[in-house]
Amino acid sequence: MRFVSFEQNSRQGLAVVRSSGEARGLLADDASFPGSLDTLIRAGAAALQRAAQKLGDGPAIDLAQVRYTAPFVASEKILCVGLNYADHSKESGYDLPPFPTVFGRFTSSLVGHGEALIRPRVSTQFDYEGEIVAVIGKSGRHIARADALDYVAGYALFNDGSVRDYQHMTPQWTVGKNFDGTGAFGPQFVTADELPAGVRGLQLQTRLNGEVVQQASTDDLVFDVASLISLLSEAMTLRAGDLIVTGTPAGVGVARKPPLFMKAGDVCEVEVDGLGILRNPIADEQG
Amino acid sequence: MRFVSFEQNSRQGLAVVRSSGEARGLLADDASFPGSLDTLIRAGAAALQRAAQKLGDGPAIDLAQVRYTAPFVASEKILCVGLNYADHSKESGYDLPPFPTVFGRFTSSLVGHGEALIRPRVSTQFDYEGEIVAVIGKSGRHIARADALDYVAGYALFNDGSVRDYQHMTPQWTVGKNFDGTGAFGPQFVTADELPAGVRGLQLQTRLNGEVVQQASTDDLVFDVASLISLLSEAMTLRAGDLIVTGTPAGVGVARKPPLFMKAGDVCEVEVDGLGILRNPIADEQG
Repeated sequence: MRFVSFEQNSRQGLAVVRSSGEARGLLADDASFPGSLDTLIRAGAAALQRAAQKLGDGPAIDLAQVRYTAPFVASEKILCVGLNYADHSKESGYDLPPFPTVFGRFTSSLVGHGEALIRPRVSTQFDYEGEIVAVIGKSGRHIARADALDYVAGYALFNDGSVRDYQHMTPQWTVGKNFDGTGAFGPQFVTADELPAGVRGLQLQTRLNGEVVQQASTDDLVFDVASLISLLSEAMTLRAGDLIVTGTPAGVGVARKPPLFMKAGDVCEVEVDGLGILRNPIADEQG
Repeated sequence: MRFVSFEQNSRQGLAVVRSSGEARGLLADDASFPGSLDTLIRAGAAALQRAAQKLGDGPAIDLAQVRYTAPFVASEKILCVGLNYADHSKESGYDLPPFPTVFGRFTSSLVGHGEALIRPRVSTQFDYEGEIVAVIGKSGRHIARADALDYVAGYALFNDGSVRDYQHMTPQWTVGKNFDGTGAFGPQFVTADELPAGVRGLQLQTRLNGEVVQQASTDDLVFDVASLISLLSEAMTLRAGDLIVTGTPAGVGVARKPPLFMKAGDVCEVEVDGLGILRNPIADEQG
């Protein structure tokens, strides 16, 4: 199943996209609206399945006419993994750590597909990072690696936009990773059954103004999706709706000579086979 | 005003504590229950004031008979500041950074006053960090330092329990700061008018089994509350209910020779003049 969260005439909507590309869905004021993805994922896999049925019986949705929203906007935890491709760790000047390197994002930093990623007023060092998000589908702690993929409901694309000067002003990256409107998420939430187990063997590509700036296989992840879930669950209970943003490969703008940063008018795209294309224009912070 | 969130017989409750120490309040199934602190703080200062009036007209609450809960459990952002006392930065081997050093906590790591702080199964390096939380009362971005304290609704105590080996296994501290049940928060949410501006000039003390292990004045904060709000709002919109956990002074267990870690049966207390005492026993993770 492929879900798209959107707004149409200021009304929340949810659609399913068929393999033909046709979308059908419902708006929040329709009597049979099944709820948001945030709600559905907490209700479990069967609820997602029933929702897809209802949405598929709904009217056709012209996705060219809607405003996409981030698929999940009420996640308890957004766990972003850094240094999870060896070539990116090297370009960033870090050794490969023995455990996943994690920083948190807050929902306040997220935008949907098609919305502008915001270059803040206080910095010109706004960088892209194409990534894949694993969306947790059920609660667990101390999850064995062999069972870990059972805890994944599905996947989506992410652009982990990073304000590099703020990211590196202190030992912790959190501020540079949490500027308003810097994390793009979507367009589709794709359930795990539509994709190879653990999204193995997929090509990830990031393009800035059409030029390929990042290109890697998910086989190059240092900690794969199953390992991330198992290891992070040593520390914390993973819950339905939690997001694990799995890391970016080499090619980020700050590591280039000369550096390549995003500016107003640019368009950044992240694409992964089977997950679609996440496309966002860049705009300057207003005011 | 001093608010206490609690549960009694599995029912959510909220009380106000008078200067005499007497508490009066209501339970969620009382018709005049004003809502949780999470809800009230988003409704604004007048709503908090009206709630205090209603609660003060409610029946007496015997706080010895309730289970305290964390005052806020639905904050959009929990921004924890590291390295914010010069002596603690020095004992931790870090230079003083030019900007607040921030890591995120997620609500899943929080416990209330009196609840057990959980030493995880996978580590023996469970450390205390006594701190003060500033609770944001209204939304703002690019807040001038001179106006910043207008954005604080009040304060509370925090014990930023840290699993040191996981904290330092990678360049980012987030995992070691987010184990389930490691962040104690409460017991009271004290509105800003009850305290010196910016909680200046207060003594913070942490005790482990009655022995003083941290002792400092809030005047020693590298970035004071007003500066934290102003600087963090360069990056992100601060919203009502957001928490800024302001940092811990020297004396943490990991920096001692020999190290001093918390274990089952210990009791850790954090005390600040006017904010009360946050007391938690330590227990081993079960299962």
